[in-house]
Amino acid sequence: MSQEQRRAIDKLLRREPQGFAPLPVEKMRAGFAAMMSQFPVPAEARQTPATLAGRPAVLVEPPTEPRPGTILYFHGGSFSLGSPHTAMGLTANLVLRTGIRALSLDYRLAPEHPFPAAIEDCLAAYRALLEDTDPSSIVFAGDSAGGGLSVTTCLAARDAGVPMPAGIVAFSPGLDHTRTGTTMATKEGVDPFFTREGMGHTGDLYLAGADPAQPLLAPAVHADLTGFPPILLQVGTNEVLLDDSVRLAERARDADVDVILDVTAGVPHVFQSFTDTLDEAGQALDRAALFLSQRLG
Amino acid sequence: MSQEQRRAIDKLLRREPQGFAPLPVEKMRAGFAAMMSQFPVPAEARQTPATLAGRPAVLVEPPTEPRPGTILYFHGGSFSLGSPHTAMGLTANLVLRTGIRALSLDYRLAPEHPFPAAIEDCLAAYRALLEDTDPSSIVFAGDSAGGGLSVTTCLAARDAGVPMPAGIVAFSPGLDHTRTGTTMATKEGVDPFFTREGMGHTGDLYLAGADPAQPLLAPAVHADLTGFPPILLQVGTNEVLLDDSVRLAERARDADVDVILDVTAGVPHVFQSFTDTLDEAGQALDRAALFLSQRLG
Repeated sequence: MSQEQRRAIDKLLRREPQGFAPLPVEKMRAGFAAMMSQFPVPAEARQTPATLAGRPAVLVEPPTEPRPGTILYFHGGSFSLGSPHTAMGLTANLVLRTGIRALSLDYRLAPEHPFPAAIEDCLAAYRALLEDTDPSSIVFAGDSAGGGLSVTTCLAARDAGVPMPAGIVAFSPGLDHTRTGTTMATKEGVDPFFTREGMGHTGDLYLAGADPAQPLLAPAVHADLTGFPPILLQVGTNEVLLDDSVRLAERARDADVDVILDVTAGVPHVFQSFTDTLDEAGQALDRAALFLSQRLG
Repeated sequence: MSQEQRRAIDKLLRREPQGFAPLPVEKMRAGFAAMMSQFPVPAEARQTPATLAGRPAVLVEPPTEPRPGTILYFHGGSFSLGSPHTAMGLTANLVLRTGIRALSLDYRLAPEHPFPAAIEDCLAAYRALLEDTDPSSIVFAGDSAGGGLSVTTCLAARDAGVPMPAGIVAFSPGLDHTRTGTTMATKEGVDPFFTREGMGHTGDLYLAGADPAQPLLAPAVHADLTGFPPILLQVGTNEVLLDDSVRLAERARDADVDVILDVTAGVPHVFQSFTDTLDEAGQALDRAALFLSQRLG
């Protein structure tokens, strides 16, 4: 048990200002990059600049001969912040724990490129990968907004007749721009990180006036997941976004899709980043790695 | 993917008569034992007769030096059928995949010993183990009715002031004798194994007139899980009991308890038994083994 670790992290997060709402987007981006740079990135993973369908990406490889398969990774940052580098701790940990390479995509961000630009980039990257890779050897993974993209890109792929990847791993995904999850209210204040107001600010940048009540903006509410590959959702109970995962899992079950809803109590948004201070972070990453290995086995 | 395997098992189960309702209990027991004897039991696990708090048990050990810890296993059989031997495939697979020994308890059965005899036996066995074992090195595991016992025994222990074990693994647990889960209706006919009517028959034997609307008989509806250790629930979508796990997971989240709701689509009750014909069986057991190892690590 690590009740003390869980409490220490909650305290730490409450001491640090969130700092990216409602500041100008460039300030939010700098603040987000500074915050994420505090998380450890395992040095053993090799990082190489790459390009996927015309967008920058980072190829992340294990130190030894990789096992077959590719993790297509989508970073977090509320659709307007972040890059492959801000999520590198998570990406590298998946690579090292599975032995499978990852490609982390630098998709276009709002407000310069609002919805559906990010999904278009992610789908284009997937299509590019498929040119020389079987879909059964590709899995999607992502955190926060990137966890949302792992689901919506799959949705866009299915609806375009593109074959499904072998699986999806989403850490604390954002899956509902209608913000109708019950935990949006019940976890306000419990969540040391997000407030409804702060999420509304970045959410508006991504929406740019689009109606959120549609599958690609609120898959937890409006998507039919028929035909999806197995999904692993990991989320903490100290999250306003908890109900996004709960409802997506329900939609998956209703569509006869394999789905694991893996909930850790008393931990915040994307707690898997805290590998240096929270035992549950590494344990959750190990479970995600087993899931990925089973999908690509 | 193993869509063909999933379909073949569904077809097989529909060909075999369920055969244990509403026959006399001795006939049901013989039919259940015959059915369960068809599942493979890995020969590498060593089985030794044992006693726990005056009840027979089976000690199941890996072929090599065991890792520290004990899995206290509760077999399935609707509270009136079965024994450690009918669940030995599941128990031995957990032992071999974790390297941790198990003690599988032959608790008293209904109708000779209705509720709460089974829970009393399971709690007594746990107390006996605690005489020379730290609770942090004990996990509960069980299938079907035994999955239910893994939860209700923990509930009885907590309410008696007995320290909590390190974790709970439940395969397709029965967690609601009020039978109010929505899947009791929506999965009737989809479930190749259980019908509401058949479950009512064995359920009545266990209840023996007790009001099912209480935590020890319907934990998915009536139990407050505060203080529980982490829980792993594995269940198929072709089960009338699916909603028992869904609702218990919800209660766990509400009580800030770590909980993994691991749902496999298109598979029946306790699909983990089908290790010889269903890839998902072994994969689910591997995930359960990782969870147990993390709890006892």
